[in-house]
Amino acid sequence: MIQVAFQGEKGAYSEEAALQYFGENIAFKPCYSFQEVFEYVTDRKVEYGIVPVENSYTGSIVDTFDLLLNYNVNIVGEKILRIKHNLIANKGVSLPDISEVYAHPQAIAQCDVFLKKIGKKITPFYDTAGSVKYIKEKKLRNAAAIASRYAAEIYDMNILAESIESFSSNYTRFYIISLKESVKGLKNKTTIVFSIKNIPGSLYNCLKPLAEAGLNLSKIESRPDRKKPWEYIFYLDFEGVKDDPIVKQALIKLEAETSFLKILGSYPADTLII
Amino acid sequence: MIQVAFQGEKGAYSEEAALQYFGENIAFKPCYSFQEVFEYVTDRKVEYGIVPVENSYTGSIVDTFDLLLNYNVNIVGEKILRIKHNLIANKGVSLPDISEVYAHPQAIAQCDVFLKKIGKKITPFYDTAGSVKYIKEKKLRNAAAIASRYAAEIYDMNILAESIESFSSNYTRFYIISLKESVKGLKNKTTIVFSIKNIPGSLYNCLKPLAEAGLNLSKIESRPDRKKPWEYIFYLDFEGVKDDPIVKQALIKLEAETSFLKILGSYPADTLII
Repeated sequence: MIQVAFQGEKGAYSEEAALQYFGENIAFKPCYSFQEVFEYVTDRKVEYGIVPVENSYTGSIVDTFDLLLNYNVNIVGEKILRIKHNLIANKGVSLPDISEVYAHPQAIAQCDVFLKKIGKKITPFYDTAGSVKYIKEKKLRNAAAIASRYAAEIYDMNILAESIESFSSNYTRFYIISLKESVKGLKNKTTIVFSIKNIPGSLYNCLKPLAEAGLNLSKIESRPDRKKPWEYIFYLDFEGVKDDPIVKQALIKLEAETSFLKILGSYPADTLII
Repeated sequence: MIQVAFQGEKGAYSEEAALQYFGENIAFKPCYSFQEVFEYVTDRKVEYGIVPVENSYTGSIVDTFDLLLNYNVNIVGEKILRIKHNLIANKGVSLPDISEVYAHPQAIAQCDVFLKKIGKKITPFYDTAGSVKYIKEKKLRNAAAIASRYAAEIYDMNILAESIESFSSNYTRFYIISLKESVKGLKNKTTIVFSIKNIPGSLYNCLKPLAEAGLNLSKIESRPDRKKPWEYIFYLDFEGVKDDPIVKQALIKLEAETSFLKILGSYPADTLII
Protein backbone atom coordinates (compact mmCIF):
# COMPACT_ATOMS: atom_id res chain seq x y z
CA MET A 1 0.00 0.00 0.00
CA ILE A 2 1.35 3.40 -1.01
CA GLN A 3 0.75 6.03 1.67
CA VAL A 4 -0.31 9.43 0.35
CA ALA A 5 -1.15 12.61 2.29
CA PHE A 6 -3.47 15.25 0.83
CA GLN A 7 -5.24 18.37 2.08
CA GLY A 8 -8.97 18.07 2.62
CA GLU A 9 -11.61 15.56 3.59
CA LYS A 10 -12.22 12.24 1.87
CA GLY A 11 -13.58 13.00 -1.61
CA ALA A 12 -11.22 15.91 -2.31
CA TYR A 13 -9.94 16.66 -5.82
CA SER A 14 -6.43 15.90 -4.51
CA GLU A 15 -7.56 12.38 -3.61
CA GLU A 16 -9.02 11.92 -7.09
CA ALA A 17 -5.76 13.13 -8.66
CA ALA A 18 -3.78 10.71 -6.48
CA LEU A 19 -6.05 7.80 -7.48
CA GLN A 20 -5.44 8.61 -11.14
CA TYR A 21 -1.70 8.99 -10.60
CA PHE A 22 -0.96 5.95 -8.41
CA GLY A 23 -3.83 3.60 -9.28
CA GLU A 24 -6.06 2.04 -6.64
CA ASN A 25 -3.71 0.60 -4.05
CA ILE A 26 -3.44 3.61 -1.74
CA ALA A 27 -3.73 4.34 1.97
CA PHE A 28 -4.81 7.97 2.24
CA LYS A 29 -3.99 10.42 4.99
CA PRO A 30 -6.33 13.45 4.83
CA CYS A 31 -4.71 16.61 6.28
CA TYR A 32 -6.12 19.88 7.53
CA SER A 33 -3.63 22.09 5.68
CA PHE A 34 -1.02 22.00 2.91
CA GLN A 35 1.61 22.52 5.61
CA GLU A 36 0.48 19.33 7.33
CA VAL A 37 0.96 17.45 4.03
CA PHE A 38 4.57 18.69 3.85
CA GLU A 39 5.13 17.74 7.51
CA TYR A 40 3.80 14.21 7.01
CA VAL A 41 6.24 13.75 4.14
CA THR A 42 9.30 15.20 5.91
CA ASP A 43 8.48 13.29 9.14
CA ARG A 44 8.40 10.08 7.04
CA LYS A 45 4.84 9.31 8.15
CA VAL A 46 3.87 8.90 4.47
CA GLU A 47 5.89 8.16 1.34
CA TYR A 48 4.14 10.76 -0.80
CA GLY A 49 2.13 13.93 -0.58
CA ILE A 50 -0.01 15.49 -3.31
CA VAL A 51 -0.63 19.26 -3.46
CA PRO A 52 -2.35 21.51 -6.04
CA VAL A 53 0.06 23.93 -7.68
CA GLU A 54 -1.99 25.85 -10.21
CA ASN A 55 -5.41 26.06 -11.78
CA SER A 56 -5.86 26.99 -15.42
CA TYR A 57 -8.50 29.61 -14.53
CA THR A 58 -7.40 31.14 -11.21
CA GLY A 59 -3.63 30.72 -11.40
CA SER A 60 -1.10 29.55 -8.85
CA ILE A 61 -1.89 28.13 -5.43
CA VAL A 62 0.51 30.47 -3.69
CA ASP A 63 0.69 28.56 -0.39
CA THR A 64 2.17 25.57 -2.19
CA PHE A 65 5.01 27.69 -3.57
CA ASP A 66 5.87 29.11 -0.15
CA LEU A 67 5.96 25.59 1.32
CA LEU A 68 8.15 24.24 -1.50
CA LEU A 69 10.67 26.92 -0.56
CA ASN A 70 10.62 26.12 3.15
CA TYR A 71 10.49 22.31 3.24
CA ASN A 72 13.13 19.96 1.84
CA VAL A 73 11.09 17.68 -0.38
CA ASN A 74 11.47 16.58 -4.00
CA ILE A 75 8.84 17.05 -6.64
CA VAL A 76 8.67 13.54 -8.09
CA GLY A 77 5.67 13.85 -10.38
CA GLU A 78 2.82 15.97 -11.68
CA LYS A 79 -0.82 15.18 -12.42
CA ILE A 80 -3.26 17.34 -14.36
CA LEU A 81 -6.93 16.82 -13.41
CA ARG A 82 -9.99 18.11 -15.26
CA ILE A 83 -12.05 19.93 -12.62
CA LYS A 84 -15.84 19.69 -12.83
CA HIS A 85 -17.59 21.46 -9.99
CA ASN A 86 -21.14 20.59 -8.94
CA LEU A 87 -23.71 22.20 -6.70
CA ILE A 88 -24.52 19.51 -4.14
CA ALA A 89 -27.30 19.31 -1.54
CA ASN A 90 -29.09 16.86 0.73
CA LYS A 91 -31.62 14.54 -0.90
CA GLY A 92 -35.04 16.14 -1.44
CA VAL A 93 -33.62 19.66 -1.43
CA SER A 94 -34.06 21.73 -4.60
CA LEU A 95 -32.48 25.00 -5.78
CA PRO A 96 -35.26 27.36 -4.51
CA ASP A 97 -34.80 25.90 -0.97
CA ILE A 98 -31.17 27.05 -0.91
CA SER A 99 -30.23 30.35 0.71
CA GLU A 100 -26.51 29.69 1.29
CA VAL A 101 -23.64 28.05 -0.59
CA TYR A 102 -20.64 26.67 1.31
CA ALA A 103 -17.49 26.44 -0.76
CA HIS A 104 -13.73 26.55 -0.83
CA PRO A 105 -12.44 30.01 -1.91
CA GLN A 106 -10.83 28.40 -5.01
CA ALA A 107 -14.17 26.84 -5.97
CA ILE A 108 -15.92 30.20 -5.42
CA ALA A 109 -13.44 31.84 -7.81
CA GLN A 110 -13.76 29.10 -10.41
CA CYS A 111 -17.60 29.17 -10.35
CA ASP A 112 -17.95 32.98 -10.17
CA VAL A 113 -20.32 33.29 -13.15
CA PHE A 114 -22.76 30.62 -11.90
CA LEU A 115 -22.72 31.96 -8.32
CA LYS A 116 -23.44 35.50 -9.50
CA LYS A 117 -26.38 34.18 -11.52
CA ILE A 118 -28.05 32.26 -8.67
CA GLY A 119 -27.34 35.12 -6.20
CA LYS A 120 -27.22 33.11 -2.97
CA LYS A 121 -25.18 33.98 0.12
CA ILE A 122 -21.67 32.53 -0.16
CA THR A 123 -19.81 31.19 2.86
CA PRO A 124 -16.14 30.28 2.42
CA PHE A 125 -15.27 26.81 3.70
CA TYR A 126 -11.82 25.33 4.14
CA ASP A 127 -12.42 22.32 1.89
CA THR A 128 -14.59 21.29 -1.09
CA ALA A 129 -15.44 17.73 -0.02
CA GLY A 130 -15.52 18.95 3.60
CA SER A 131 -18.32 21.37 2.75
CA VAL A 132 -20.43 18.46 1.41
CA LYS A 133 -19.73 16.45 4.57
CA TYR A 134 -20.67 19.48 6.68
CA ILE A 135 -24.11 20.13 5.15
CA LYS A 136 -24.83 16.39 5.34
CA GLU A 137 -23.85 16.08 9.02
CA LYS A 138 -25.79 19.22 9.96
CA LYS A 139 -28.73 18.00 7.80
CA LEU A 140 -28.97 21.52 6.33
CA ARG A 141 -31.92 21.88 3.98
CA ASN A 142 -31.30 25.53 3.05
CA ALA A 143 -27.65 25.08 2.04
CA ALA A 144 -25.63 23.61 -0.80
CA ALA A 145 -21.93 22.93 -1.30
CA ILE A 146 -19.56 22.95 -4.28
CA ALA A 147 -17.47 19.83 -4.90
CA SER A 148 -16.79 16.97 -7.31
CA ARG A 149 -19.16 14.23 -8.44
CA TYR A 150 -16.86 11.88 -6.56
CA ALA A 151 -17.56 13.76 -3.30
CA ALA A 152 -21.34 13.67 -3.97
CA GLU A 153 -21.11 9.88 -4.44
CA ILE A 154 -18.98 9.26 -1.34
CA TYR A 155 -21.39 11.21 0.91
CA ASP A 156 -24.50 9.95 -0.96
CA MET A 157 -25.81 13.41 -1.80
CA ASN A 158 -27.76 14.98 -4.66
CA ILE A 159 -26.31 17.03 -7.53
CA LEU A 160 -28.50 20.12 -8.17
CA ALA A 161 -26.38 21.51 -11.00
CA GLU A 162 -23.37 19.98 -12.71
CA SER A 163 -20.30 21.46 -14.40
CA ILE A 164 -20.90 24.89 -12.88
CA GLU A 165 -17.29 26.05 -13.45
CA SER A 166 -16.97 29.29 -15.44
CA PHE A 167 -14.70 27.83 -18.10
CA SER A 168 -15.00 24.29 -19.37
CA SER A 169 -11.23 24.23 -19.79
CA ASN A 170 -10.79 24.08 -16.02
CA TYR A 171 -7.77 22.00 -15.02
CA THR A 172 -5.75 21.79 -11.84
CA ARG A 173 -2.12 20.71 -11.83
CA PHE A 174 -0.83 18.80 -8.80
CA TYR A 175 2.72 18.07 -7.65
CA ILE A 176 3.55 14.75 -6.05
CA ILE A 177 6.17 15.34 -3.34
CA SER A 178 8.41 12.87 -1.55
CA LEU A 179 11.77 12.45 0.15
CA LYS A 180 12.63 9.96 -2.62
CA GLU A 181 13.97 10.84 -6.05
CA SER A 182 11.67 10.27 -9.01
CA VAL A 183 11.94 7.75 -11.81
CA LYS A 184 12.36 9.63 -15.08
CA GLY A 185 10.00 9.32 -18.05
CA LEU A 186 10.21 9.96 -21.77
CA LYS A 187 9.47 13.67 -21.38
CA ASN A 188 10.55 15.34 -18.15
CA LYS A 189 10.30 18.66 -16.38
CA THR A 190 12.51 20.35 -13.80
CA THR A 191 11.29 22.88 -11.23
CA ILE A 192 13.68 25.38 -9.65
CA VAL A 193 13.37 28.34 -7.29
CA PHE A 194 15.82 31.24 -7.08
CA SER A 195 16.14 34.80 -5.90
CA ILE A 196 18.08 37.65 -7.47
CA LYS A 197 19.91 40.53 -5.87
CA ASN A 198 18.07 43.37 -7.60
CA ILE A 199 15.39 43.07 -10.25
CA PRO A 200 17.06 45.38 -12.91
CA GLY A 201 18.48 43.30 -15.76
CA SER A 202 19.02 40.27 -13.56
CA LEU A 203 15.90 38.29 -14.38
CA TYR A 204 16.87 38.62 -18.03
CA ASN A 205 20.39 37.42 -17.19
CA CYS A 206 18.97 34.44 -15.29
CA LEU A 207 16.79 33.36 -18.22
CA LYS A 208 19.70 33.69 -20.66
CA PRO A 209 21.49 30.37 -19.87
CA LEU A 210 18.19 28.48 -20.16
CA ALA A 211 17.27 30.17 -23.46
CA GLU A 212 20.77 29.55 -24.86
CA ALA A 213 20.58 25.87 -23.89
CA GLY A 214 17.23 25.65 -25.75
CA LEU A 215 15.34 24.65 -22.60
CA ASN A 216 11.63 25.41 -22.92
CA LEU A 217 10.14 27.32 -20.02
CA SER A 218 6.67 26.00 -19.22
CA LYS A 219 5.90 28.20 -16.20
CA ILE A 220 7.23 31.21 -14.32
CA GLU A 221 5.87 32.40 -11.00
CA SER A 222 7.06 35.31 -8.87
CA ARG A 223 6.44 35.44 -5.12
CA PRO A 224 7.51 38.12 -2.64
CA ASP A 225 10.57 37.45 -0.52
CA ARG A 226 8.86 37.60 2.88
CA LYS A 227 11.94 38.96 4.59
CA LYS A 228 12.72 41.68 2.04
CA PRO A 229 9.85 43.95 0.92
CA TRP A 230 9.44 44.18 -2.87
CA GLU A 231 12.12 41.61 -3.58
CA TYR A 232 10.97 38.56 -5.48
CA ILE A 233 11.61 34.85 -5.57
CA PHE A 234 11.10 33.12 -8.92
CA TYR A 235 9.84 29.61 -9.57
CA LEU A 236 10.49 28.13 -13.00
CA ASP A 237 9.40 24.92 -14.71
CA PHE A 238 11.36 23.93 -17.79
CA GLU A 239 11.60 20.82 -19.96
CA GLY A 240 14.62 18.68 -19.14
CA VAL A 241 16.30 16.67 -16.40
CA LYS A 242 18.72 18.16 -13.86
CA ASP A 243 21.33 15.41 -14.46
CA ASP A 244 21.49 16.03 -18.22
CA PRO A 245 24.93 17.66 -18.91
CA ILE A 246 23.35 20.53 -20.91
CA VAL A 247 20.88 21.29 -18.10
CA LYS A 248 23.62 20.99 -15.46
CA GLN A 249 25.77 23.52 -17.33
CA ALA A 250 22.85 25.95 -17.74
CA LEU A 251 22.00 25.69 -14.02
CA ILE A 252 25.62 26.45 -13.04
CA LYS A 253 25.50 29.61 -15.17
CA LEU A 254 22.08 30.51 -13.78
CA GLU A 255 23.25 30.02 -10.19
CA ALA A 256 26.06 32.54 -10.74
CA GLU A 257 23.38 35.19 -11.45
CA THR A 258 21.30 34.43 -8.37
CA SER A 259 21.71 35.05 -4.66
CA PHE A 260 20.20 31.61 -4.02
CA LEU A 261 19.09 28.62 -6.12
CA LYS A 262 17.27 25.42 -5.12
CA ILE A 263 16.39 22.58 -7.47
CA LEU A 264 12.98 21.27 -6.42
CA GLY A 265 13.01 18.19 -8.63
CA SER A 266 13.01 16.57 -12.07
CA TYR A 267 10.01 14.39 -12.89
CA PRO A 268 8.03 12.94 -15.80
CA ALA A 269 5.70 15.48 -17.43
CA ASP A 270 2.00 14.61 -17.44
CA THR A 271 1.16 13.70 -21.03
CA LEU A 272 -2.47 14.85 -20.88
CA ILE A 273 -3.30 16.79 -24.03
CA ILE A 274 -5.74 19.61 -23.36
CA MET B 1 -13.85 67.64 -3.93
CA ILE B 2 -12.03 64.73 -5.57
CA GLN B 3 -14.24 61.66 -5.91
CA VAL B 4 -12.51 58.36 -5.14
CA ALA B 5 -13.95 54.83 -5.18
CA PHE B 6 -12.43 52.05 -3.07
CA GLN B 7 -13.36 48.52 -2.07
CA GLY B 8 -14.54 48.03 1.49
CA GLU B 9 -16.37 49.83 4.25
CA LYS B 10 -15.43 53.22 5.68
CA GLY B 11 -12.13 52.76 7.55
CA ALA B 12 -10.52 50.47 4.95
CA TYR B 13 -6.79 50.53 4.28
CA SER B 14 -7.61 51.70 0.74
CA GLU B 15 -9.32 54.77 2.20
CA GLU B 16 -6.27 55.50 4.36
CA ALA B 17 -3.99 55.15 1.32
CA ALA B 18 -6.24 57.54 -0.66
CA LEU B 19 -6.17 60.10 2.18
CA GLN B 20 -2.37 60.00 2.18
CA TYR B 21 -2.21 60.22 -1.61
CA PHE B 22 -4.77 62.97 -2.29
CA GLY B 23 -4.82 64.85 1.01
CA GLU B 24 -8.02 65.56 2.92
CA ASN B 25 -10.42 67.00 0.34
CA ILE B 26 -12.08 63.77 -0.82
CA ALA B 27 -15.57 62.44 -1.38
CA PHE B 28 -15.36 58.67 -0.94
CA LYS B 29 -17.44 56.02 -2.64
CA PRO B 30 -17.09 52.68 -0.80
CA CYS B 31 -17.64 49.68 -3.11
CA TYR B 32 -18.52 46.05 -2.50
CA SER B 33 -15.89 44.65 -4.90
CA PHE B 34 -12.80 45.64 -6.87
CA GLN B 35 -14.89 45.21 -10.01
CA GLU B 36 -17.33 47.84 -8.77
CA VAL B 37 -14.40 50.25 -8.30
CA PHE B 38 -13.40 49.73 -11.95
CA GLU B 39 -17.02 50.19 -13.06
CA TYR B 40 -17.41 53.46 -11.14
CA VAL B 41 -14.31 54.79 -12.88
CA THR B 42 -15.25 53.67 -16.40
CA ASP B 43 -18.86 54.87 -15.95
CA ARG B 44 -17.43 58.31 -14.98
CA LYS B 45 -19.24 58.22 -11.63
CA VAL B 46 -15.92 59.02 -9.91
CA GLU B 47 -12.68 60.60 -11.15
CA TYR B 48 -10.43 58.07 -9.43
CA GLY B 49 -10.38 54.59 -8.01
CA ILE B 50 -7.80 53.09 -5.65
CA VAL B 51 -7.07 49.35 -5.58
CA PRO B 52 -4.45 47.24 -3.77
CA VAL B 53 -2.01 45.59 -6.14
CA GLU B 54 0.46 43.73 -3.97
CA ASN B 55 1.45 43.13 -0.38
CA SER B 56 5.08 42.70 0.61
CA TYR B 57 4.26 39.54 2.61
CA THR B 58 1.51 37.76 0.68
CA GLY B 59 2.22 38.91 -2.87
CA SER B 60 -0.03 40.09 -5.64
CA ILE B 61 -3.75 40.80 -5.31
CA VAL B 62 -4.61 38.69 -8.34
CA ASP B 63 -8.13 40.07 -8.87
CA THR B 64 -6.69 43.53 -9.50
CA PHE B 65 -4.50 42.20 -12.30
CA ASP B 66 -7.40 40.45 -14.00
CA LEU B 67 -9.46 43.67 -13.84
CA LEU B 68 -6.61 45.81 -15.23
CA LEU B 69 -6.61 43.52 -18.25
CA ASN B 70 -10.36 43.72 -18.81
CA TYR B 71 -11.18 47.40 -18.16
CA ASN B 72 -9.81 50.38 -20.07
CA VAL B 73 -8.41 52.57 -17.31
CA ASN B 74 -5.04 54.26 -16.81
CA ILE B 75 -2.83 53.72 -13.82
CA VAL B 76 -2.10 57.32 -12.84
CA GLY B 77 -0.31 56.82 -9.53
CA GLU B 78 0.87 54.42 -6.85
CA LYS B 79 0.84 54.64 -3.06
CA ILE B 80 2.71 52.40 -0.64
CA LEU B 81 1.08 52.08 2.80
CA ARG B 82 2.63 50.56 5.92
CA ILE B 83 0.06 48.02 7.14
CA LYS B 84 -0.38 47.58 10.89
CA HIS B 85 -3.09 45.10 11.76
CA ASN B 86 -4.86 45.14 15.12
CA LEU B 87 -7.16 42.75 16.94
CA ILE B 88 -10.26 44.82 17.64
CA ALA B 89 -13.27 44.10 19.88
CA ASN B 90 -16.22 45.80 21.53
CA LYS B 91 -15.47 47.83 24.66
CA GLY B 92 -15.22 45.76 27.84
CA VAL B 93 -14.36 42.59 25.91
CA SER B 94 -10.97 40.99 26.63
CA LEU B 95 -8.97 38.29 24.83
CA PRO B 96 -10.21 35.29 26.91
CA ASP B 97 -13.83 36.23 26.02
CA ILE B 98 -13.08 35.79 22.32
CA SER B 99 -13.89 32.51 20.58
CA GLU B 100 -13.97 33.73 16.98
CA VAL B 101 -11.98 36.13 14.82
CA TYR B 102 -13.58 37.74 11.74
CA ALA B 103 -11.10 38.85 9.14
CA HIS B 104 -10.40 39.46 5.49
CA PRO B 105 -8.51 36.52 3.92
CA GLN B 106 -5.55 38.84 3.20
CA ALA B 107 -5.44 39.88 6.86
CA ILE B 108 -5.65 36.21 7.93
CA ALA B 109 -2.62 35.45 5.74
CA GLN B 110 -0.65 38.44 6.97
CA CYS B 111 -1.33 37.67 10.67
CA ASP B 112 -0.86 33.89 10.39
CA VAL B 113 1.71 33.61 13.21
CA PHE B 114 -0.40 35.56 15.74
CA LEU B 115 -3.61 33.72 14.80
CA LYS B 116 -1.92 30.33 15.17
CA LYS B 117 -0.70 31.38 18.63
CA ILE B 118 -4.10 32.48 19.99
CA GLY B 119 -5.82 29.47 18.39
CA LYS B 120 -9.33 30.94 17.95
CA LYS B 121 -11.82 29.99 15.26
CA ILE B 122 -11.23 32.08 12.13
CA THR B 123 -14.10 33.27 9.95
CA PRO B 124 -13.26 34.88 6.60
CA PHE B 125 -15.01 38.21 6.07
CA TYR B 126 -15.14 40.22 2.86
CA ASP B 127 -13.62 43.37 4.35
CA THR B 128 -11.27 44.44 7.18
CA ALA B 129 -13.10 47.58 8.34
CA GLY B 130 -16.39 45.83 7.54
CA SER B 131 -15.57 43.09 10.04
CA VAL B 132 -15.17 45.74 12.79
CA LYS B 133 -18.49 47.33 11.79
CA TYR B 134 -20.13 43.87 11.84
CA ILE B 135 -19.09 42.86 15.36
CA LYS B 136 -20.08 46.32 16.60
CA GLU B 137 -23.54 46.23 14.99
CA LYS B 138 -24.18 42.67 16.20
CA LYS B 139 -22.81 43.66 19.65
CA LEU B 140 -20.76 40.42 19.63
CA ARG B 141 -18.91 39.90 22.89
CA ASN B 142 -17.23 36.62 21.90
CA ALA B 143 -15.75 37.89 18.64
CA ALA B 144 -12.91 40.12 17.46
CA ALA B 145 -11.96 41.54 14.07
CA ILE B 146 -8.69 42.41 12.34
CA ALA B 147 -8.32 45.92 10.93
CA SER B 148 -6.42 49.20 11.15
CA ARG B 149 -6.20 51.61 14.11
CA TYR B 150 -8.09 54.03 11.84
CA ALA B 151 -11.02 51.56 11.63
CA ALA B 152 -11.00 51.06 15.43
CA GLU B 153 -11.21 54.85 15.87
CA ILE B 154 -13.97 55.36 13.30
CA TYR B 155 -16.19 52.69 14.90
CA ASP B 156 -15.12 53.62 18.47
CA MET B 157 -13.87 50.14 19.36
CA ASN B 158 -11.13 48.70 21.57
CA ILE B 159 -7.74 47.43 20.41
CA LEU B 160 -6.90 44.13 22.19
CA ALA B 161 -3.56 43.59 20.47
CA GLU B 162 -1.70 45.90 18.12
CA SER B 163 0.72 45.28 15.23
CA ILE B 164 -0.21 41.60 15.00
CA GLU B 165 1.15 41.23 11.43
CA SER B 166 3.73 38.45 11.02
CA PHE B 167 6.41 40.70 9.57
CA SER B 168 6.93 44.30 10.64
CA SER B 169 7.95 45.09 7.07
CA ASN B 170 4.33 44.73 5.95
CA TYR B 171 3.47 47.15 3.15
CA THR B 172 0.68 47.23 0.60
CA ARG B 173 1.06 48.94 -2.74
CA PHE B 174 -2.01 50.57 -4.30
CA TYR B 175 -2.67 51.75 -7.84
CA ILE B 176 -4.70 54.89 -8.46
CA ILE B 177 -6.77 54.38 -11.60
CA SER B 178 -8.61 56.92 -13.76
CA LEU B 179 -9.77 57.68 -17.28
CA LYS B 180 -7.39 60.69 -17.20
CA GLU B 181 -3.68 60.60 -17.96
CA SER B 182 -1.31 61.19 -15.08
CA VAL B 183 0.98 64.14 -14.42
CA LYS B 184 4.58 62.87 -14.48
CA GLY B 185 7.01 63.18 -11.57
CA LEU B 186 10.77 63.16 -11.15
CA LYS B 187 10.93 59.37 -11.07
CA ASN B 188 8.28 57.46 -12.99
CA LYS B 189 7.14 53.92 -13.60
CA THR B 190 5.31 52.27 -16.47
CA THR B 191 3.10 49.20 -16.18
CA ILE B 192 2.40 46.98 -19.18
CA VAL B 193 0.62 43.67 -19.78
CA PHE B 194 1.35 41.27 -22.63
CA SER B 195 0.90 37.70 -23.72
CA ILE B 196 3.24 35.53 -25.73
CA LYS B 197 2.52 32.82 -28.25
CA ASN B 198 4.44 30.00 -26.58
CA ILE B 199 6.45 30.17 -23.41
CA PRO B 200 9.74 28.63 -24.82
CA GLY B 201 12.39 31.33 -25.28
CA SER B 202 9.79 34.04 -25.82
CA LEU B 203 9.71 35.55 -22.33
CA TYR B 204 13.46 35.94 -22.61
CA ASN B 205 13.02 37.61 -26.01
CA CYS B 206 10.41 39.97 -24.56
CA LEU B 207 12.68 41.07 -21.72
CA LYS B 208 15.60 41.64 -24.11
CA PRO B 209 14.54 45.07 -25.51
CA LEU B 210 13.93 46.36 -21.97
CA ALA B 211 17.28 45.06 -20.69
CA GLU B 212 19.11 46.49 -23.72
CA ALA B 213 17.47 49.89 -23.16
CA GLY B 214 18.67 49.78 -19.54
CA LEU B 215 15.13 49.94 -18.17
CA ASN B 216 14.94 48.59 -14.63
CA LEU B 217 12.24 46.00 -14.04
CA SER B 218 10.64 46.52 -10.63
CA LYS B 219 7.97 43.79 -10.80
CA ILE B 220 6.93 40.84 -12.91
CA GLU B 221 3.69 38.93 -12.43
CA SER B 222 2.35 36.00 -14.43
CA ARG B 223 -1.35 35.19 -14.55
CA PRO B 224 -3.10 32.41 -16.47
CA ASP B 225 -4.78 33.28 -19.73
CA ARG B 226 -8.34 32.30 -18.75
CA LYS B 227 -9.24 31.30 -22.27
CA LYS B 228 -6.15 29.18 -22.94
CA PRO B 229 -5.15 26.62 -20.30
CA TRP B 230 -1.48 26.90 -19.19
CA GLU B 231 -0.81 29.99 -21.27
CA TYR B 232 0.30 33.04 -19.35
CA ILE B 233 -0.16 36.77 -19.40
CA PHE B 234 2.68 38.86 -17.98
CA TYR B 235 2.47 42.14 -16.11
CA LEU B 236 5.65 44.22 -15.86
CA ASP B 237 6.53 47.40 -13.99
CA PHE B 238 9.65 49.20 -15.14
CA GLU B 239 11.22 52.58 -14.48
CA GLY B 240 10.55 55.10 -17.23
CA VAL B 241 7.79 56.94 -19.10
CA LYS B 242 6.03 55.54 -22.16
CA ASP B 243 6.52 58.78 -24.16
CA ASP B 244 10.30 58.76 -23.70
CA PRO B 245 11.85 57.91 -27.13
CA ILE B 246 14.05 55.14 -25.63
CA VAL B 247 11.05 53.54 -23.90
CA LYS B 248 8.90 53.91 -27.03
CA GLN B 249 11.54 52.14 -29.12
CA ALA B 250 11.88 49.30 -26.57
CA LEU B 251 8.09 48.85 -26.44
CA ILE B 252 7.87 48.62 -30.24
CA LYS B 253 10.50 45.84 -30.19
CA LEU B 254 8.74 44.12 -27.30
CA GLU B 255 5.37 44.29 -29.04
CA ALA B 256 6.81 42.43 -32.03
CA GLU B 257 7.56 39.47 -29.71
CA THR B 258 4.07 39.37 -28.18
CA SER B 259 0.67 38.28 -29.40
CA PHE B 260 -0.84 41.25 -27.56
CA LEU B 261 0.48 44.27 -25.61
CA LYS B 262 -1.38 46.89 -23.56
CA ILE B 263 0.24 49.86 -21.82
CA LEU B 264 -1.59 50.33 -18.52
CA GLY B 265 -0.01 53.67 -17.65
CA SER B 266 3.03 55.78 -16.75
CA TYR B 267 2.93 57.47 -13.35
CA PRO B 268 5.16 58.96 -10.62
CA ALA B 269 6.82 56.31 -8.44
CA ASP B 270 6.07 56.48 -4.73
CA THR B 271 9.24 57.77 -3.08
CA LEU B 272 8.69 55.94 0.23
CA ILE B 273 11.98 54.38 1.36
CA ILE B 274 11.40 51.12 3.19
